[in-house]
Order: sequence, then structure tokens, then C-alpha cells
Amino acid sequence: MRFIVADWGTTRFRGYLIENETILDQVSSDEGVSALKQGQHRDVFLRHCGRWLDVEPDAPVLLVGMVGSREGWVVAPYASCPAGPAEIAGAMIPVDLDHGRKAYIIPGLYCEPTPGAPDVMRGEETLVLGAGVENGLVCSPGTHPKWIEMRGGKIERFATYMTGEMYALLREHSMIGRPATEPEDPRGFDLGLEAARRNSGEGGQHVGLLHLLFGARAAVVSGHMETSLLAPYLSGLLTGDEINGALSQFGRPSAVTIIADRPRADLYRHALARHGIETHVKAPQEALIAGLARIVRHHRAG
Amino acid sequence: MRFIVADWGTTRFRGYLIENETILDQVSSDEGVSALKQGQHRDVFLRHCGRWLDVEPDAPVLLVGMVGSREGWVVAPYASCPAGPAEIAGAMIPVDLDHGRKAYIIPGLYCEPTPGAPDVMRGEETLVLGAGVENGLVCSPGTHPKWIEMRGGKIERFATYMTGEMYALLREHSMIGRPATEPEDPRGFDLGLEAARRNSGEGGQHVGLLHLLFGARAAVVSGHMETSLLAPYLSGLLTGDEINGALSQFGRPSAVTIIADRPRADLYRHALARHGIETHVKAPQEALIAGLARIVRHHRAG
Repeated sequence: MRFIVADWGTTRFRGYLIENETILDQVSSDEGVSALKQGQHRDVFLRHCGRWLDVEPDAPVLLVGMVGSREGWVVAPYASCPAGPAEIAGAMIPVDLDHGRKAYIIPGLYCEPTPGAPDVMRGEETLVLGAGVENGLVCSPGTHPKWIEMRGGKIERFATYMTGEMYALLREHSMIGRPATEPEDPRGFDLGLEAARRNSGEGGQHVGLLHLLFGARAAVVSGHMETSLLAPYLSGLLTGDEINGALSQFGRPSAVTIIADRPRADLYRHALARHGIETHVKAPQEALIAGLARIVRHHRAG
Repeated sequence: MRFIVADWGTTRFRGYLIENETILDQVSSDEGVSALKQGQHRDVFLRHCGRWLDVEPDAPVLLVGMVGSREGWVVAPYASCPAGPAEIAGAMIPVDLDHGRKAYIIPGLYCEPTPGAPDVMRGEETLVLGAGVENGLVCSPGTHPKWIEMRGGKIERFATYMTGEMYALLREHSMIGRPATEPEDPRGFDLGLEAARRNSGEGGQHVGLLHLLFGARAAVVSGHMETSLLAPYLSGLLTGDEINGALSQFGRPSAVTIIADRPRADLYRHALARHGIETHVKAPQEALIAGLARIVRHHRAG
């Protein structure tokens, strides 16, 4: 089975020609949706992937990521949890290519596990379906990391954290992160994880993330922390607090599957090991292709 | 008793001629310590306050705030908690004015209630000593709010939160705060306080501040929150989470004294009322002058 895909995010366009779970050809550019105006998407897609449309006249065409957001080609409304490959395939939104050919935008997911507290994802649903987890907890790190509970092969519910964006804010714009120096001393990561314990409920303590963040500044200005430790410290503190929250929301599993490339996956592996939790690691591109293959099979069957 | 004071912070210089707790004359400028280079401080002080030195040859001269930091006139090393007016007066650092006259820099305070978790303040110690609290909990809101435990008239320990700076980061630089519109709908503040309950331990829940912050974005992009609510929502969420942390660290008192001007004091009063905690409000300038008067009395006695 051959199919054509665009993984179309905020800053990148990535096109793939796929046979089963093997990439036959690929293309990429910096024409992410944030670089485009309404009406430009079809031309960009055809310029990059048109040659595959010609030689594969029967191949389904799927679009995944922010291409389905308000800033994208057309809005693909969020599907609701629980959702598996069939529900997601059934909620895809068609857009016209040429000669009557259509592409299908994979919708994002919406959940509201607590009334009045909605959460959303767009793109990660496809990776998660390709992570090989029927029942269990999956973590997809990034600018806005997602923790996803899988039940019976469906995405049951999930929670998003702003960890990556917060780290960037602290490093680039805050008084807290300003004193950080390079080269970084990676031992700061462990010190940050250790500090996060003070907000984990251990010993009845929840001193608050806003306090622990200021603590990094207090430690530096009072001469108790080398500035080379500061950036990894903030990373460890934020990662540790994300994990505290996820374990509070989803319970304490024996294992978590991490969808991430190696250096980042290793940080989560290390942080979760402190909680006695085992990790399995899945590469994001592999998860994406596997998830797409599952969705496209339901699309053909539907 | 007359004395001369400069409240000399990062962005402002404020000079006062005081008799007991009454301001006889005052001056201010934007020559905060961040605007000055080494060696300029004496001239700035003399230009603004020199006329008072001449007519009050016996008046003590005190400097308070960031003027004692690394970016200030000279470093006044932090005094350690517990500290009252006598300990703080005894740790002041003299600097030369002219004709043998000296000014005294009030030191900041350092505490380390948990080993390896230091905290610092510089300036707030003086306000707190003027808050009229011998035993109890005091809150000094701002860019980096402080919660201070008073015991036997001394500052026993304290904890700082980066609430105000975090709000500014989210509003000015983040994807989370970007969609906020004006005029603001103040009802968002209560919604934010309500969301903070999910990180308060009520019902065993500590979902994590990084999750609740992303939740504001999820609510907006999924159409569940008007953008006019967003900024007050973020303010309420951060204030609520600061209070969660402070109550976890200092216990749940029946009353808290807030050192703040009216609009901000009212937000804290409202947030603390949800916890059944009464508030007393002290105006910052009044607290500053009262705290200075206590310190200067110990200085003269010493």
C-alpha cells in the first residue's frame, strides 16, 4: 500500500511518499503554515509532492499537523476522545488538489477529562497511534509536551504541559535565566530534578513551582550556585515538575513510552528512573509513519 | 528624631526627609541602580539630598533596596534570619558622603529554611518590619512576591515567588498569553483562581502549573474561553498557585497582612478569602517609613 503524506507544522513542511511503513522518497522546506497566507497551501503542496501524485494516481493523500489549524489550509475540527485510528480517519477533512484528487487533513484531538478544563493536540495523535502502545502511558516531549493515556488501542485522555516553551521563556527573557553561562554543567539537571521533589508532595510538601524558579535566582545571587549549572537546573526543575503533575493525573505506571529522539529521551528516562518507572523509547519519525499507516488503512476501508 | 533616607531600587531613586514617621520633604528620579555606573552613586545622592544634609547635620542617613546589591553603590552582604531591627541595624554597611558624613546601607536578608534551598530579599525586610506584625504571616506582592513569617518581632523565614515576572513573561513573550485582548474581562481572575484549585491538593489533585498554563491556550483555541478573559485568568492562576505554595510552606493562618496599594491588595484579599483567610492591608510607603524608623532607632542606640 502506497500513500502520500505532508507533515505540515508551524515552521516546517515535510512531504513523504510511503509504501507500508517504508519511506520511498521525501522532501522538506521551511514553508510551515506560519510562513503562508490563505490560498497558498495547494500550490506549495503541489510544487513539492505533485510528481508523486502523477506516478501514484491511486495513493491516498494525508495531511497532518498545524495544517488543520486556524492558521492552516482549512480548519479540521478537533475529534473527541476516546479516539482510535477509525475515529480519526472518519473525522478527516478533505481539501481539493487538482483533477478531482483530494487530500485529507487529520483532525486534532480534544478532551475534557475535568469539566471546564479542556485540552487539545494537533499532530501528536498520529505519533501516539504509531507508538505501539495499546494500553499504557505515552509521553511526547517538545515545546508543549503531551502525556497520553492509551486504553484498548484508543487515545483515552491526555494532558499538555508548557515545559519547553517555559524553558525558552526563562532562558531568553527572564531575570531568572539571564545569569546562565556556557559551557553548561549537565549536573545541574539532577539538581533541578531534586528541587522538583519539593513540589511533588513527598513529605507533604508542595512549595510551588513559582517559588522553586525564584530559588534558582536566589541560589545564584547568594553565591550558592555556579552559573554554568543554571540552564540545566531550570531544565531539570521544569521536567521534574511536569512529571510530578503527570503522575498525579495518570497514576504511577510501571513503564512509560517516550516518543523522542535520543538526547531528549535520555533526559526523560533519567528523570523517570528516579520514580522507579521504566521507559521505552520510540523515534518520532518511526511513530509518525506507523500512525499514518494505521489511519490510512481505516481511511481505505471506510 | 529626623533622618534622611534613599529608597533606591532597580529603576527608581526616592529620597525622603523624615521626622519620626512623617515625611517632611521628598524627591524622586529615574536614576535607579540599573541606570548608574560604579562611582556615580554619591553624586546622584548628593544632588538630590545634599540640601537636607546641610540643614540636618545630625540626621542619620539610610539607604535601602538594590543600592546594596552587586549592581549598587557597594555590596551590603545579606544578614541571616532570624533578624529584627537590631540585627539589621547592626549589619548596615557605611559609605562615605562628604565632610566625614556617612550613609548606611540596609542589608538584604538571607534564609535557608530547607538545606540547599536559599532565599533572599533586599528592601522588603524594611517594609516588613514596618507592617506592625510581631507574630504572623506577611505578604509583600510585586515582581517577586515575598511571604514572610514574623516571630517575636523578627523575620523568622520567608519564601519568594516569581509571580509578577511570570505574568509579564506570559503576556509579553509567550504563545499562551499572545491571544489576550482588551478591554479585559475581570471575571477571568476568578476563573484562574478556580483553576489553581486543581493544583492545591484538594481532592488529591496536583495537576501541575505547567499544565494549567497550557490549559489557558487549549481553552482559547478550542473556543471555550473569550480572549478578553485570558489576561485576568493568567493573573488569577498564578496568584492562586502562589497562595497554594505559601499555605503549604507556612501553614494556614487565620489572617495575613498584605503590604500593597489598593488594587493589588484587593486581588490578594479576594484570593485569600476563598481559603477563609482574613487580610489586613498596609500601604507600602507607610510600611517603609515605619520600618526605617525602627531600624534608625536601633542604629542610634547602637
